[in-house]
Amino acid sequence: MNAKRYLEEADVDAIIIYNGQSIDLNFYYFTRLLYGGIFEGSFAVVTDEGVKVITSPLEEQSAKKGNNEVIIYRNKVEREELIKKTIEKAERIGLNYGGLTIKDFENIKDILGNKVYVDIYEKILQWRMIKDEEEYRLIKEAAKIASEVADIMPDFIREGMKEYELAARLAYEMFKRGAEDLAFTSIVAFGENSAEPHYISGSRKLKKGDFVLIDFGAKYKHYNSDITRTFVFGRATQIQKDMYYTVLEAQEMAINMIKEGVNGKEVDIRVKEYINSTQFKDRMIHSTGHGLGLAVHDHIGLTSLKDMILKERMVVTVEPGIYIPGKGGVRIEDDIFVRKDGAEILTYAKKSELIEIS
Amino acid sequence: MNAKRYLEEADVDAIIIYNGQSIDLNFYYFTRLLYGGIFEGSFAVVTDEGVKVITSPLEEQSAKKGNNEVIIYRNKVEREELIKKTIEKAERIGLNYGGLTIKDFENIKDILGNKVYVDIYEKILQWRMIKDEEEYRLIKEAAKIASEVADIMPDFIREGMKEYELAARLAYEMFKRGAEDLAFTSIVAFGENSAEPHYISGSRKLKKGDFVLIDFGAKYKHYNSDITRTFVFGRATQIQKDMYYTVLEAQEMAINMIKEGVNGKEVDIRVKEYINSTQFKDRMIHSTGHGLGLAVHDHIGLTSLKDMILKERMVVTVEPGIYIPGKGGVRIEDDIFVRKDGAEILTYAKKSELIEIS
Repeated sequence: MNAKRYLEEADVDAIIIYNGQSIDLNFYYFTRLLYGGIFEGSFAVVTDEGVKVITSPLEEQSAKKGNNEVIIYRNKVEREELIKKTIEKAERIGLNYGGLTIKDFENIKDILGNKVYVDIYEKILQWRMIKDEEEYRLIKEAAKIASEVADIMPDFIREGMKEYELAARLAYEMFKRGAEDLAFTSIVAFGENSAEPHYISGSRKLKKGDFVLIDFGAKYKHYNSDITRTFVFGRATQIQKDMYYTVLEAQEMAINMIKEGVNGKEVDIRVKEYINSTQFKDRMIHSTGHGLGLAVHDHIGLTSLKDMILKERMVVTVEPGIYIPGKGGVRIEDDIFVRKDGAEILTYAKKSELIEIS
Repeated sequence: MNAKRYLEEADVDAIIIYNGQSIDLNFYYFTRLLYGGIFEGSFAVVTDEGVKVITSPLEEQSAKKGNNEVIIYRNKVEREELIKKTIEKAERIGLNYGGLTIKDFENIKDILGNKVYVDIYEKILQWRMIKDEEEYRLIKEAAKIASEVADIMPDFIREGMKEYELAARLAYEMFKRGAEDLAFTSIVAFGENSAEPHYISGSRKLKKGDFVLIDFGAKYKHYNSDITRTFVFGRATQIQKDMYYTVLEAQEMAINMIKEGVNGKEVDIRVKEYINSTQFKDRMIHSTGHGLGLAVHDHIGLTSLKDMILKERMVVTVEPGIYIPGKGGVRIEDDIFVRKDGAEILTYAKKSELIEIS
């Protein structure tokens, strides 16, 4: 979308995104400065003349790699004057109330004075949900990296190794394939730790019979992937197999439901209904999926807590799980690009058979 | 510090930290839930009864690993009631205006109604600057990981390799030593790319005569280290040597100045004065250092832009650099624990001679 269209749709004369200490990812959304630079303390300003980046000399070289007008300030006073000048003619200023701290908002009001401030948080979220070609390509690349890595992980799994050692290998293999960062702190959970959905990794050593749950993703040019696979080290017990194939069934059911126009809420409800109809009643303690993009939890996805009519070109995760505290858990997660008449699965690591690592 | 002392010093009856989508690291500061869990959407509430964590069932197991009272909500309505109840008797509510979005603030006001809200952003920053024993220990461990990795990196450097391949090795070696994440996206810059202080890494291939600049850190139990070393691949030219030893001299001068009571501003001024007295006048385009802790840029450190009287138990980076656009740059960075009468250097990777990798 071009600058004018953003302003029209949000009904404002200018949009200001401040990339403060807690980084507002929308800075990257509007500037598309995806290929280098940190831009702490920088501003992205959308006016009818286009997108302007107000940044420090430190970021000058990085900023000039994009297609925006680059304005350099040498100190705080100059920064304030430049921002003021850039939106001189604007009356209605769109801000992201969901990414701007109270402190930074007060600072902006001090600089700009008497303007009409409009919260465009929801509007930006709507825009960000629909991925354009560049975004689709970057997420697909991030998903490719994660898929390749998931597929080779069983080769690195050895008895007695620690969770964080496998996390090290995960990171290495992702970076080697061009990831610029982890999408998030990898979860590598052995045995009973796999029952804790938000476990990270520790020094638990791998034993025969353990579940090995890996949940990780690659960040590629600021866009993320997010994948989970669960293996068994050694021979799987019947209950482990039941857990795995129940989750797989639930996941495939959910993926098959996905297409434009479907309510994400219905998907989560159906997944839970299915799991609750098995011996694993009430063992799925989170939603089926979330939106994915610049943020790993980009927007609401598939959750019974909220309506979310899926639209073409959204990306959502599908990740049912079953957790038995003290014993273990299974989760299988893929990233889905929503198409008009179905799901395009971006992550393609093997999952159809429970892998027993010998 | 205990809960009562925080409330006294901030002159409030309760402190509420909301760990929203953009994570407010103060959640970890108050709860010390450093050993697992994500806690998105969770609240930390400090009252005279202690610290309470209000979180979802998804985080229950992780939350119970700490020393706080854990309160579980099953849905949004319950969450609101629980927060309300927890601070029922409080009149003055301390909030972090520097970490709370406008949206979340409005939400809190909707829940709690007519209270007196006090911005304790600066207060928290003051507290966080002074590291207690646990924090010191964790940063020291993070620094140890980074130092070990910096020292072995020359062994992995080969002609023709790409920057991101070296970044992969950096990550692997840090995770293998127990880092749970990168402190930040590693900078691996070859040749002319080293002149860009905030470059990340790309597919530039290593050639004879290139600078190799690596700037990276480990996150260990949520605390960070941050180190930079610069090598030359092949034989260094005279100008490369001059750049290196000028930076080293500036860095050692800065480190020698550090102790309780010194103004960080003076340190930065002296470093710039020194560099400007050499052939590299005006080639240092950033401040000498920043505070380090839960955040990589934790607080103001050594910058001529602002007074900062150093106190015992602060951690600051010292990282002068010289950059020649199109040619290359040198930066040397270490993490310093401020002691009463000097600097304790936490990162100990070799630096006294410019390493020429053959």
